[in-house]
Amino acid sequence: MSDNHEPEKISIPNGRQGLIAKIAEKAVKTNSETILGIGDDAAVINSGNLRTLVSTDMFVEGIHFNLVYTPLKHLGWKVISAAISDIIAMNAQPKQVMVSIAVSNILMQSQILEIYEGIHLACNHYHVDLAGGDITSAMRGLTICVTAIGTAKEDDIVYRNGARPTDLICVTGNLGGAYMGLQLLERERSVFESTGVQPKLDNNDYILRRQLRPEAQIELLDYFKKKEIKPTSMIDLSTGLADELMNLCRASDMGCEIFEERIPIADETKKMAEEFGITPVVAALNGGEDYEMLFTIELKEYEKIKDNDFFTLIGSINTADKGSYIVMNDGNMMPLSDSFNSSN
Amino acid sequence: MSDNHEPEKISIPNGRQGLIAKIAEKAVKTNSETILGIGDDAAVINSGNLRTLVSTDMFVEGIHFNLVYTPLKHLGWKVISAAISDIIAMNAQPKQVMVSIAVSNILMQSQILEIYEGIHLACNHYHVDLAGGDITSAMRGLTICVTAIGTAKEDDIVYRNGARPTDLICVTGNLGGAYMGLQLLERERSVFESTGVQPKLDNNDYILRRQLRPEAQIELLDYFKKKEIKPTSMIDLSTGLADELMNLCRASDMGCEIFEERIPIADETKKMAEEFGITPVVAALNGGEDYEMLFTIELKEYEKIKDNDFFTLIGSINTADKGSYIVMNDGNMMPLSDSFNSSN
Repeated sequence: MSDNHEPEKISIPNGRQGLIAKIAEKAVKTNSETILGIGDDAAVINSGNLRTLVSTDMFVEGIHFNLVYTPLKHLGWKVISAAISDIIAMNAQPKQVMVSIAVSNILMQSQILEIYEGIHLACNHYHVDLAGGDITSAMRGLTICVTAIGTAKEDDIVYRNGARPTDLICVTGNLGGAYMGLQLLERERSVFESTGVQPKLDNNDYILRRQLRPEAQIELLDYFKKKEIKPTSMIDLSTGLADELMNLCRASDMGCEIFEERIPIADETKKMAEEFGITPVVAALNGGEDYEMLFTIELKEYEKIKDNDFFTLIGSINTADKGSYIVMNDGNMMPLSDSFNSSN
Repeated sequence: MSDNHEPEKISIPNGRQGLIAKIAEKAVKTNSETILGIGDDAAVINSGNLRTLVSTDMFVEGIHFNLVYTPLKHLGWKVISAAISDIIAMNAQPKQVMVSIAVSNILMQSQILEIYEGIHLACNHYHVDLAGGDITSAMRGLTICVTAIGTAKEDDIVYRNGARPTDLICVTGNLGGAYMGLQLLERERSVFESTGVQPKLDNNDYILRRQLRPEAQIELLDYFKKKEIKPTSMIDLSTGLADELMNLCRASDMGCEIFEERIPIADETKKMAEEFGITPVVAALNGGEDYEMLFTIELKEYEKIKDNDFFTLIGSINTADKGSYIVMNDGNMMPLSDSFNSSN
């Protein structure tokens, strides 16, 4: 099962991880073609000389998006970006998507087609094919389920569990922007609903785009190929850095050390975080939906990557007994957990 | 896009088929691996020496199932059966399923696990692997999205569009049972809701099982292999016989002639149809969710199949100009349309 979006909003009774573990336990593997089932960003299937990777994500109105401020075209773009991000996180090339939509009669056909306009745009941009799906009625609300399919050579696939001591921890782009965009949209929505004052969204294009129209890190695949680098582990940041880094460390049975000063945060994100009284690094550690890539590479690759302007080296992997922590700018070492609390 | 369940309940504004056509039109194919996208029971992907088939179906509470009378375990079984039925309809072996569930807090963890109990049962029965998925919260209701994945040799795949004049039209099992089971459940539910009288479901096990716990026709794959028969076209009966036969004829650009007396209907189905004042053949033609297989084979295969107790020969394919009709027992020829009306 792939990890989900915005963990703070997910409240599956008694804990989602425990539930998934119980389900995975009973999922007997009967086909030798199923190389990997539940447990990473995507399932891995043996299809002869290649591997087929499949991942499914569900996006629910009121949980993952709010139609009050989400343009339908952006929504279509976003669900495709989020879905193929899971395939990229396995170092595989996304090739097809299947999109299923359950929609109530409140949406008109023209609005459904607007969602698909965003889907087509994203498909063209990422060179993936919309290969099928399902459209059905719903009593209420809009639910979108996207299955992303990709291919990779067996030796190229990167799992979550390959991180080893001294490996360098890297993250693409910058973090916390999508989260601050969401905070801004939520604030303006609630102001509008209680006072009728029109939303003030000017000059916040960057963080709004991070939230409403995120980009999947597909160029990273070519970068790795060109540089002849194979990450030792990789995961996409659908939830926050803290949560996903812990997922990666747990899967690899490792600990880690990262540095506050190294965590990439855009100026626009910092500015908005300060406006909200949120410590920027907390937004970066806990905020989801950036769809950046978190990966580890061997120390010996350092020379190859040191001058790149694509991703940032934020720390390194330790043995599990050393624990997982972030070194703050003041020198304090704070333990990391799935959700980082700066007052830990 | 795969065809859906219970067409009578689907009310996507301005027509679902038109909507899908508009979406398909803009779905540009950029990857040579995508052999077939939107338009059949499943997408077909070139994965080297084999073909990978992928299909996605969405099941929505209040549209496709009613939790008032659907045992959760049966629901889990049913969504898997329905999903892999699309792969079987391409003459391909289902291998994996991905299950995504959006669920409100009304369901407890134990209830979610009950759904998965049915999913695991079905996976074991059909020898498919639960390879992943997603679990997320929903504001209201339960939505399940199942992606089924299968494999086939290139030459074995059967599409909808291969029916040719004189081909024999065959259907597995018997029809209309799931529909009559639904009518019974709906009647007892509404009696219970208005009067408090407990449902009377005794002695109706057969049609209830057809509705609540349908079987996918996976044995058909082995039958074809053993008999060395390759159907010229195939489709699964998720909606009614009339609708799916028209889908098959339209895809093949053909017409057809079927015979009322040949349409297989179980005694239990006939009995319940009569109780409801429904002509049994109308239940068979219009009722969905039987998940039987409708296929055509060349006339020359007749000797091989004539004594089988697996499926029934119900008619033959004509050129399109001859139209599509059913020969009634009284000799009248009634035109077929997506939804058959006996007073046509």
